[in-house]
Order: sequence, then C-alpha cells, then structure tokens
Amino acid sequence: MQSIDVRNMLNAIITLTTDFGLKDPYVAEMKAVILGINPDAKIVDISHNIEKFNIRMGAYVLAAAAQHFPKNTIHLAVVDPGVGTKRKAILIETEKAYFVGPDNGILALAAEKQGLKRVHKLSNRKFMLPEISATFHGRDIFAPAAAFLSKGVSPSEFGPVIRRIVKPKFAEVTRKNNILIGEVIHVDDFGNIITNITSKDLEELRLKLAKNVKLKLKDAWLKVRLCSAYAEAKAKTPIGIIGSHDFLEISINMGNAAEIFQVKTGDKVTVYRY
Amino acid sequence: MQSIDVRNMLNAIITLTTDFGLKDPYVAEMKAVILGINPDAKIVDISHNIEKFNIRMGAYVLAAAAQHFPKNTIHLAVVDPGVGTKRKAILIETEKAYFVGPDNGILALAAEKQGLKRVHKLSNRKFMLPEISATFHGRDIFAPAAAFLSKGVSPSEFGPVIRRIVKPKFAEVTRKNNILIGEVIHVDDFGNIITNITSKDLEELRLKLAKNVKLKLKDAWLKVRLCSAYAEAKAKTPIGIIGSHDFLEISINMGNAAEIFQVKTGDKVTVYRY
Amino acid sequence: MQSIDVRNMLNAIITLTTDFGLKDPYVAEMKAVILGINPDAKIVDISHNIEKFNIRMGAYVLAAAAQHFPKNTIHLAVVDPGVGTKRKAILIETEKAYFVGPDNGILALAAEKQGLKRVHKLSNRKFMLPEISATFHGRDIFAPAAAFLSKGVSPSEFGPVIRRIVKPKFAEVTRKNNILIGEVIHVDDFGNIITNITSKDLEELRLKLAKNVKLKLKDAWLKVRLCSAYAEAKAKTPIGIIGSHDFLEISINMGNAAEIFQVKTGDKVTVYRY
Repeated sequence: MQSIDVRNMLNAIITLTTDFGLKDPYVAEMKAVILGINPDAKIVDISHNIEKFNIRMGAYVLAAAAQHFPKNTIHLAVVDPGVGTKRKAILIETEKAYFVGPDNGILALAAEKQGLKRVHKLSNRKFMLPEISATFHGRDIFAPAAAFLSKGVSPSEFGPVIRRIVKPKFAEVTRKNNILIGEVIHVDDFGNIITNITSKDLEELRLKLAKNVKLKLKDAWLKVRLCSAYAEAKAKTPIGIIGSHDFLEISINMGNAAEIFQVKTGDKVTVYRY
Repeated sequence: MQSIDVRNMLNAIITLTTDFGLKDPYVAEMKAVILGINPDAKIVDISHNIEKFNIRMGAYVLAAAAQHFPKNTIHLAVVDPGVGTKRKAILIETEKAYFVGPDNGILALAAEKQGLKRVHKLSNRKFMLPEISATFHGRDIFAPAAAFLSKGVSPSEFGPVIRRIVKPKFAEVTRKNNILIGEVIHVDDFGNIITNITSKDLEELRLKLAKNVKLKLKDAWLKVRLCSAYAEAKAKTPIGIIGSHDFLEISINMGNAAEIFQVKTGDKVTVYRY
Repeated sequence: MQSIDVRNMLNAIITLTTDFGLKDPYVAEMKAVILGINPDAKIVDISHNIEKFNIRMGAYVLAAAAQHFPKNTIHLAVVDPGVGTKRKAILIETEKAYFVGPDNGILALAAEKQGLKRVHKLSNRKFMLPEISATFHGRDIFAPAAAFLSKGVSPSEFGPVIRRIVKPKFAEVTRKNNILIGEVIHVDDFGNIITNITSKDLEELRLKLAKNVKLKLKDAWLKVRLCSAYAEAKAKTPIGIIGSHDFLEISINMGNAAEIFQVKTGDKVTVYRY
C-alpha cells in the first residue's frame, strides 16, 4: 500500500541546478511553468553556471548544496546532453528530499548521500506540459513534475518504480602504502581545487592538521601544510585545507590555485606521507 | 467607462529583464523599490545579461519567456540607451499580461504576441519615486509603476492612452522560389544560432523533419539535417532544429555553433530547398 | 533596560552581498540555512559578483543598494578574506536596518549612512550552526544570525555590545583652490567610472550642470561637459554625470569609459575648474 503523503505543502522549496547560464530565457521559462502550476512554490537557484554538459560538476554542486536544505525540498536539476533521446526522466525519493531530472547521473550523488528510497520514471503525461519539445524537457517535463510534486501529488502517480539509475563516474580514492590517489572534482570560482579525498582518507594515512604533506597535482610537485583556515597561510602560498564539504582542497590564500597550477576537473591528485 | 479591475492581487508576479548585469547594485535597487511598495510581490528574474543597449536581444528574450508566465504577470524590462531623453515611459495591457518599460521596442514583440489591448504613457508623478534621476528610470519610474500595478492600481491612473509604440526592427523572412532569407535573432549561451525562420516558413518550402537543407550562414555553406533533438546528430555535426520557441536553430551537438561559424545577431541566413 | 522588539516579522527581507560568484553551491547553502531557520524569509540578492576579497567594492555596492530597502531589512554581506582568523563577526543596528557580516569594513559604509545605533559581537553559539567550519562563516555563522534575527530574536541576545568597528579605507575628497582630488570607487558593468566626488563637492567649486570641467583621470587629460543624462552627449563622447547615487561619474554614451581610459577602482581623479 502506498503510504499517505503527509508533506506540508506550504512553503514548498524547489531548487534549480542547470547549465543554462543566465543570459537566455530558459531559466525563467522553467520558473514560469512552476509558478503557473504552484503559485506558492519558493524557487531557489543553486547554480545555472554548471559547465555546459558537465554532468559530474552538476552532480557535485547539487550534492554540496542539497544537504543543507530543509526536509521535503524538491531539487530539480537539468544538465541534459541527451535531451530528446531515450534517456529516462526520473523522480527520486530519499529519506530527506526529492530529486527530479534526467537519469544521467546528475541526481545520483546527492540522492545517495541522503539515503535513496525509491525511483519513479516520469511517464504520466498528465503531469507534463501539453506540448513537449524535443529540446527542452527542463521546461516541458521536469518543471511541471517538480511543481505538481510540490502541490502534494504522490510520487507514485508520476510513473512506475524503476530499480536502477545511472551514476556519475567519479574515481574512487585509492590507497597504496603511504600514497592516496584521487582526482579533482571541482574548481570553484575562487580557484580552490577541490579533490575527492576526504578527511577520513587523510586520517587513514595519519595525516592531520598542521602536518605538511607532499602532493602531486597534475604535473607539479608541492609541499603544503594542512590548515583549517585560508588565512592561516601567508598570502600567495599554497595550502591544503579540509573545506566546508569535508574534501581536501588545494588553495592559495588571496590567490587562484587552479590558474597557477593549470588544473581542471578530472586531473589526478596524489598525496604522499613522508 | 473604465472596466473594474478584477485582478487577484495575491501572488502578483513581476518579472525583470535588463542589461544591467549582476555585479552592480542596480537590479537590487529596483527590487528594493518594488518590495517597499508591495511587500507581497513575487519577483522573478528573466535575464539581466542582455547585451548592453541591445534592444532587439532584450525584446527576443522577453518575448520567449513571457508567454510561459501565468495570466496577469507584470513584465518590467529596461534596456534603455535613451534614458533621460524624450523617449516615452509606457505601460502596455495585453490579453494576458502587463508590460512596463521604455517605449523603444523592448516591450513590443512580447506584447504583440499576446494581443495588444491598450498602451498608457507613464506620466502620473504619484506613482514614481519622489526624486527622479536622469540616469536610472528603472528604479525611479518603472519599478514603482510595476509595484503599484501589482497592488491593483488601474492602468488608466498611470497616464493617458497613447496610440502608437515603437517596434524593434526585426527583418521579415522573405521567400523567393525555393529560397528563404532570414536573419539571426539570438545566439544563446550554448552557441545555438536562433533565426527568425519559423516552422511555418519551412513548411511553405515543403521542408520538414529528417530532410536535408542547404544553408548559407553568413559566409559559410552548410548542408544540415532537420532534426528534432540535439542528440540525434553525431557529436560535433551541425544540424538544423526547430527549437523550443518554434524558430529554426542551427546547432552543433555538444559544440558551440556560433563560435565555429563566427555568427552573431543580425547576420543573414539563407535556406535552400534542393 | 532592553527595549522591546516591535519588528513586524512578516515579510522580513534578508539581502545577500558576497564575492562567491554564481557557479558554486555556496550562495545556495546560505539560502538553505536561512530558509531552514525561517521559511518565511524573503531573500533578495544584491550581488554575488563582488571582486574576490575586494572589501571596498563590496562596501560601495552594499551602501548603494541598502538605502532603497524598506525599514527593518536585514543585510547580510560576506567578503571575508580573514575567515577563520580572529576578525570579529558582528551585527549592526542602524536607525533603519540591520547588518550582519565580518568586521572588516564591508558593513560600515552602508551602516554609517543609515545612522549607526549599536554593534553586537556574534558570539552566542545558540544562533550558529552546530558545526562551524573555519572556511565558511557565511553559511555557519552569518546566515543563521540573519535568519534568527528575522524571526525576532533581539540583537542583544547574539552577543555583547562592542564600541568600535573596522571602516573601509576610502580616500576623502580633498580640495585645493580650484582643484578637487578624489578617487575611483567603482567601475560598473557599463564601464561607468564612479568617483567619490559628490555633487556637493562640485558645487563648492561652483561647478554645475552644463558646465565644462577639466579632469585628470589616471594618466589621461579630459575636458567633459557635466550632463544629467547619458544620452545628452554624442555617442562615444566622454561626459561627466551626477549618477543615481549622487557621485560624479565619467561615462561614455553607448561606450565603455573604463575600458577606453584603462581605469580601475582606486585610481586618482582630479577635477579642475577653469
């Protein structure tokens, strides 16, 4: 039996994460569709500046932000190079929230972090716009789904349960003796280089705050101190820091680390204890 | 007799379209003025990244987004190179919505699409800020007008009806035998080249999905397939697509068509049937 | 005795001004924290494109926007190169509004303009997130403070009153005989060069509209007319204008003055009467 839906529909929050940029009408069209269906929806932008077609970056940014939103928030994410093909449209229920978007990995990282409960395929035409373009499912399928969900439509009404979803391909951190091998998962607007190496990974190497570590970052060798605040380091000196999302970041106080070391998402990072 | 205004004032949506960019205080000043007059207004950004002074681009973006908003939405648009001169400030009523801004063409495309009903000159000082700068009518005249309108002030109270408005200069599509001549009206953030040629224009040339067409795009000759989804084409191959706003777009799956063909707004596009 | 707090908590506005940019999850994380504490808060972005670490620019943009917001607005600003060090976290009460952020000058300009009443140190852990990172006080300390304040928590509950705050270092305008010496305080997205010279400063030199003035702008000598609207000048001609914030701006109608004169924030401006 389907459990009764006890969401409080007042103040339903719908977040948006896309690679649409902020110049075009596209983001506003999605908001227009949402507000047409649920005038009381509170829409919060996470980011519309995900790199075009970069599903991994979208997955990372969504996962970083989603964990801070209140219970029952609906997260709508569209980085969708496969729009108009047979990739599925899905709705994920987690212990805490809802995720709506294409089944290409963009939702999986955030959803798994929150405890995945059930996934529905979006197939019920009743909850889509009457005309569906082949190029803009964000507006025609995902925005209406999020809006109807925010009005209390039960997830099971959107379509059948499916068992498997696509996951974004992030490298796992590997450890060999005194070495951790990971990769750059995001470069932020400050130029901070965010890796997939967590504080737990560093602890297993008995690396902790105030220690120096040796790093290979793409082609450059660095020796950095593990700090807890950017300003602990001298200006223009690279440091290692456990950032606000519990990942190892390579930063330069008052400078742009990614520019200086010419690093981008996907580049390899090796940490040595010595 | 003036018809009674039966707008439902709860959840009044006010959209904003400007060329102000997102770095400066200007957009927030407009929002501050609106919320000072109507604390319940729901403000939705359409775009603040219209190219500086590019009225045609503003008109296109506003028209593309406006059609999706609910009835009685108030659209405020400010791309206003003539601010402080004798260009008029206007309020347009359409069958569906309201448009507020300078009379320079920025509003006309969207308003005509919705069925133009009446145009008022904004001349009543009661609905402007007490002090009016010569450089920022967005804040001092248009924002208060939109806010008072959202509170239920009747359009006729803002000023006299006027008969003529300025229209943006878009080329008409012309047809000669087996040739359509149009122009680029927008280049989006993905590099999709959006032309003013509609699906109806193509049908008149008996061009339809899955057909190949020959195109001249600025100086380049192309043969493209008319597709319905970006991902139907091989990566990096140019295609023709009827986009989500019913215009012919030239796109490159997973690539930036405008960069590759060095095309910008206003460039000529010719379509040949062969 | 502490005065009773009579703020009307409905429609509390919280504004955000940061140097975080719009690509990353950071701004959304702050909004998530705010809405988790006060689901009814109305969040308005002032700017997230303050130049990284540029406290003076943040102070200018916040001051320009803040004056237009309704009474009791809460302004949260985070340009915070010293995050994680011993710089204080503060809450300022003014005659009109509240300001929350680091004590590094970012808040002072706007707060003093509104009549500074009292400053509290944010030290009460009850109004912070349970875990406080050393790198993101915007999310962990300032966002919760603004949100609790918007729910009616009295400023005195956040921490003790402090007597002195850090002020941003803006040059004063100096006058020698027929010369005014000031500096560039902001370059806006149109390329308008905004100086710290006010209309009052110009009046003291008996300079007024329609007069010509001689200017030295960094290394360039200019003769400009003092205009009241951009469009009064011929296209591509530099003019002086008293902008919408009552500062002397050097602008080029339909052009980018800052690019042409290669001027940036902090550069010297000298005005001569002749």
